[in-house]
Amino acid sequence: MITSFHPPQRTLMGPGPSDVHPRVLSAMARPTIGHLDPAFIDMMDEIKKLLQYALRTDNPLTMPISAPGSAGMEACFVNLVEPGDKVIVCQNGVFGGRMKENVERFGGEALMVQDTWGTPVSIEKVRALMEAHDGIKALAFVHAETSTGVRSDAQALCRLARDYGCLTIVDAVTSLGGIELEVDQWGIDAIYSGTQKCLSAPPGISPVSFSERALEKASNRRTRVPSWFLDTNLVMGYWGGGQKRAYHHTAPVNALYGLHEALVMLQEEGIEHAWKRHALHHEALKAGLETLGLSFTVTADARLPQLNSVQVPEGVDEAQIRARLLENYNLEIGAGLGELAGKVWRIGLMGSSCTRRHVMLCIDALENTLSEAGVSLPSGAAAAAADVYYSAEA
Amino acid sequence: MITSFHPPQRTLMGPGPSDVHPRVLSAMARPTIGHLDPAFIDMMDEIKKLLQYALRTDNPLTMPISAPGSAGMEACFVNLVEPGDKVIVCQNGVFGGRMKENVERFGGEALMVQDTWGTPVSIEKVRALMEAHDGIKALAFVHAETSTGVRSDAQALCRLARDYGCLTIVDAVTSLGGIELEVDQWGIDAIYSGTQKCLSAPPGISPVSFSERALEKASNRRTRVPSWFLDTNLVMGYWGGGQKRAYHHTAPVNALYGLHEALVMLQEEGIEHAWKRHALHHEALKAGLETLGLSFTVTADARLPQLNSVQVPEGVDEAQIRARLLENYNLEIGAGLGELAGKVWRIGLMGSSCTRRHVMLCIDALENTLSEAGVSLPSGAAAAAADVYYSAEA
Repeated sequence: MITSFHPPQRTLMGPGPSDVHPRVLSAMARPTIGHLDPAFIDMMDEIKKLLQYALRTDNPLTMPISAPGSAGMEACFVNLVEPGDKVIVCQNGVFGGRMKENVERFGGEALMVQDTWGTPVSIEKVRALMEAHDGIKALAFVHAETSTGVRSDAQALCRLARDYGCLTIVDAVTSLGGIELEVDQWGIDAIYSGTQKCLSAPPGISPVSFSERALEKASNRRTRVPSWFLDTNLVMGYWGGGQKRAYHHTAPVNALYGLHEALVMLQEEGIEHAWKRHALHHEALKAGLETLGLSFTVTADARLPQLNSVQVPEGVDEAQIRARLLENYNLEIGAGLGELAGKVWRIGLMGSSCTRRHVMLCIDALENTLSEAGVSLPSGAAAAAADVYYSAEA
Repeated sequence: MITSFHPPQRTLMGPGPSDVHPRVLSAMARPTIGHLDPAFIDMMDEIKKLLQYALRTDNPLTMPISAPGSAGMEACFVNLVEPGDKVIVCQNGVFGGRMKENVERFGGEALMVQDTWGTPVSIEKVRALMEAHDGIKALAFVHAETSTGVRSDAQALCRLARDYGCLTIVDAVTSLGGIELEVDQWGIDAIYSGTQKCLSAPPGISPVSFSERALEKASNRRTRVPSWFLDTNLVMGYWGGGQKRAYHHTAPVNALYGLHEALVMLQEEGIEHAWKRHALHHEALKAGLETLGLSFTVTADARLPQLNSVQVPEGVDEAQIRARLLENYNLEIGAGLGELAGKVWRIGLMGSSCTRRHVMLCIDALENTLSEAGVSLPSGAAAAAADVYYSAEA
């Protein structure tokens, strides 16, 4: 007989999920109600407003897709790419490659802009490709690459796309809530994110938002959307507002309770304060890690505060270190992904996992674990991190 | 400012979601862990075994899709239907129509077998169509039509499909856990269900299972699956077993805690006992409703115990009755859907909502509410239901 599952209590400092606040966990356990209950419909409207707040947009089609971030990605591409469409896809990590897969599965042609993993998307390369090709329909890129920890200049890329009259599709899975993100001001046309990163709700839901231009493209397709579940023309009837909601699918009621609570907490803190909080704790973590002699994969100007990719020291068995952190400290940090597998650790400081407690635990646990593994380390890492907090308070 | 959401405490007797047991709700609130955590991987294996138990199958590809039932439906069709494939789709309610949409969006040709809403799929009509056409690739039908409350003979339909060498795609959203369902014994090739019906976990996850024959078709396609999120060839790497799991997407960790607990409860009860429980409470509800003068949409031989579709009495404003049940009793029952909208109520007795308490509350609340609305009713409904329990105990 299989019995009830009681998870260990971890501290989550990997690339997501991040720690979920007890307020959000207890929201998930509230009694399930019907997805057409008037009380639920009101809550859906609130989620929409809260997402508009977090994404800094007035887009009416702003809603949570009832599935994880990869389905949010697919929702953008399946609606906006038609057979034969040329789409520029920027790849500087794992998730750009997944965008290419999406474009091609829906019959589009992906024109690739390749940049070294760990560096931002090159604006000049994108511009050159736009100059070289006629009739490009969309530009797709990752704002915050979860696989490397690099930030690309979303504002500049969107401006460029507007200049050349093409739509933008932006992966904001790791950026939303952690760094500045301005959907309306930057003119982003289609954006998707996840709940398990800087929003710190459990994984499983993907916030998306479509501009008027994107909706126009989606509703004037030559071909039918090759998905029923993700067709915005249908989803709009359910989430789009208006008096009468058309039944489309059964929403994940309790998961949405969790997302609602996480967004209420973000609104209480204020989104700009959340950005500043991520920047501060990143500085403290960085001071500690650099004192330990660890170096960052990404240069300071393009580094994400919420995803810290650091090089594994020479001769260290990276998987063993992670296993010991998990076993001895219940601390999860992330492995490298794709071509960085085995070479880096990814340390997340996302949402509820972005606090002084997390920073100090991580430095202490890494210091002890690396020492035990025979790496000789300079002292003073915790003090260096503490100094950052001291200076910030002064 | 938007504040925390506190749902009303309803009793859910509509077409789903059903009441979620406190054990399942509290499982949802357990601490989130990483989707690659060894403890989580072990839990995934348990969920797989528990789903195999519930579906009565040894299929290695048996797993929960990280999205609602409509995505489970799409997972079956997007993998198994290629452009030009002929698929027989049986329609005797809303969900057969959605299957047709799926076939067509993936480039297939849907050959329709139409039956009156509220009657089972006609085996003879299906046979005639199979005789009339060569090269039919699949037969798709709904085992338990949620929109009407009718059960079709899945066993006979699957036998027929085997005789003609075509695959079966079966919608078991409402049947799983409520009535007999034998994936291996009946030779079902692809099946999808939902969590929010007779399993009584919150909505948002879709159990699916593929036979060897189905997997063979999916892995020998001429064309690429037009979905990245639902491609079984990728999903298999994550859920398919084997030592090393390939990262595909981030699983909805806490929702899976809930599903795990609901499946543990089903295993504790025993699946055959659950089928009997649904049959018993249906008998009691039926005795009560018929005493009130309400008549069933579906004839007794094809009626689902877990979804009771009854005709709205002449001259009664059905929406007003439902609103009053919700307001005065916190009781949700379902409206009609599609061509039965306004004509029927759908009363669910699913999973944790299938108890004596639910039956007696529903009869009492309906009796009082119809009386208040001026319908003259015979007395003795509660006693008639109680008699069924008395006889069953004797």
